[in-house]
Amino acid sequence: LSGQIAVGVDIMGSDTQPEELLAALLPLASRLAPSVSLVAIGRPELATQAIRYVAAPDEIRMDDPPLVAIKRKKHASMLIGLRMLKERRISAFVSAGNTGALVSGAKMVVGTLPSVRRPALIALFPTKKGPLAVIDVGANIEADHKLLVQFAHLGAAYQRARQIVKPTVGLLNIGAEPIKGKTEQRLAYAYLTDHPSPLFTFCGNVEGKSVFDGHVDVLVSDGFTGNVFLKTAEGIGSLLIDQLQAHLPPNTPFATTLEQFTRHLHHSHSPGALLAGLKGLVVKCHGYASPDAFASAVAGAAQMAASGFLETLEKELKHLSRT
Amino acid sequence: LSGQIAVGVDIMGSDTQPEELLAALLPLASRLAPSVSLVAIGRPELATQAIRYVAAPDEIRMDDPPLVAIKRKKHASMLIGLRMLKERRISAFVSAGNTGALVSGAKMVVGTLPSVRRPALIALFPTKKGPLAVIDVGANIEADHKLLVQFAHLGAAYQRARQIVKPTVGLLNIGAEPIKGKTEQRLAYAYLTDHPSPLFTFCGNVEGKSVFDGHVDVLVSDGFTGNVFLKTAEGIGSLLIDQLQAHLPPNTPFATTLEQFTRHLHHSHSPGALLAGLKGLVVKCHGYASPDAFASAVAGAAQMAASGFLETLEKELKHLSRT
Repeated sequence: LSGQIAVGVDIMGSDTQPEELLAALLPLASRLAPSVSLVAIGRPELATQAIRYVAAPDEIRMDDPPLVAIKRKKHASMLIGLRMLKERRISAFVSAGNTGALVSGAKMVVGTLPSVRRPALIALFPTKKGPLAVIDVGANIEADHKLLVQFAHLGAAYQRARQIVKPTVGLLNIGAEPIKGKTEQRLAYAYLTDHPSPLFTFCGNVEGKSVFDGHVDVLVSDGFTGNVFLKTAEGIGSLLIDQLQAHLPPNTPFATTLEQFTRHLHHSHSPGALLAGLKGLVVKCHGYASPDAFASAVAGAAQMAASGFLETLEKELKHLSRT
Repeated sequence: LSGQIAVGVDIMGSDTQPEELLAALLPLASRLAPSVSLVAIGRPELATQAIRYVAAPDEIRMDDPPLVAIKRKKHASMLIGLRMLKERRISAFVSAGNTGALVSGAKMVVGTLPSVRRPALIALFPTKKGPLAVIDVGANIEADHKLLVQFAHLGAAYQRARQIVKPTVGLLNIGAEPIKGKTEQRLAYAYLTDHPSPLFTFCGNVEGKSVFDGHVDVLVSDGFTGNVFLKTAEGIGSLLIDQLQAHLPPNTPFATTLEQFTRHLHHSHSPGALLAGLKGLVVKCHGYASPDAFASAVAGAAQMAASGFLETLEKELKHLSRT
């Protein structure tokens, strides 16, 4: 159907029961624009009349070793969804399942854009200024300096696609000086300094304490450290609510602000983290995402698909790699 | 002097002017018990009558390469302080200077306890339950699985010395499953599972989001990730204050709680981070610590020295290594 956008949703393999995730999709489906539809993918017996449904005989679990799983479980919901994306039967795919399997599966089935070696997960964070794009929040648990440099380009293209003309880019590190960090950070620092791009500004190292001041638009990290960064930010939000609640008069403007702030931190990667660098829109949700957060990630993916975000990102990446 | 405790304080090499750090020590010096005194170590021209002072002709700077600096700058305030500690002319030493130089210098000059390969920085964090000891927050930017196992023992000994009889110990990781993380985390997980100690309980992997629930007493990490964890927690505190301030009625019990919470997070490693595993008490302050936070780290070091914390820690470590 021309102009029709379908978003494929893997309801299996997260920490939440598939029934609950499916239930969260139904109100969303009725809220979406007429040109957008959802396709749930999961165990055959969960199929419902209320939403398009593709039955998947198998599923990849959280504790499956990723490479073994994508080789042996060809009929898992995740791989069925990725093939549908590859064949353009859907315009975006959302999963809250095994991250390693999703990254390797997407790379293998959907393929990466030219000049992209490995896809990376980008999540948006609130700061004192605008939203910060953190890349990578968990796709590549290790990253050499070349991969970190690629993340800088990918993150800059992402923020340019979000209308930031010349994004500022920083390296997540444990000190400001160029000699700080591990070999990969030091080499990435030197490379980005020696090879400036006219399309983004490299600002050097950034520490966790100043990230939230908002003076960079893109924060570059290996996926292990980036994931710790993401989850620590969430954990603090939850601690804070706990510590403050006893003293908090309910239903005040302040209580509302605090709640919104915490929800923002907590769902800092809904509407989902984009698995960037692929020839298709793949959005990853936390395995522990609540049904509501999951639905909001699906809505975000639908929005990206409808706005042609992938095409814009692809164009930006071409500009960057030409410089 | 028998029963006398002197704390040596390096006032050079931090991001704050030595004059300001020195000024913050004066009110503290007059507040300490009569048996405790301070010795400031710094540039000759800053010497004052108000406090014992050791003149150091040289200083190690933040951007000095650590190993070169400790080799060439023998008369830097930091190395003078470490030698005074080695010679027992002081009972504890505090510095807010170059972390790499302090770690390598302390290892070389003061020496490590038997069975300790590398010293590690321990910082205390607030949680929903009791204080959490995070090891390592920046002494070893890389750590193989054997070093991570040693951190588990060192962290457990630290919490036992703080009167927690059988501490719970977790590995900072990006998922709960034993296969999560890099090789070093996976191997450390397997080793700690296969070699249980009767003196602490290994609880497996812990994610940043659940750390603050307080179900572990010790969190084990390489120094790079641990440092990012520490500074991210601080950064969020600062963001939060910023976001909430507009809505906050001043001078309410709630405003006070929020401020205390943020200060706690922000100074999460004052009273300083202990450089644990050495034959002497070495306390590290953030390079960006305010004069007040610096003084509070010095007070903490004095308190540890007066309570015989090092001797207790040493005894606990012996118990642990025998198991």
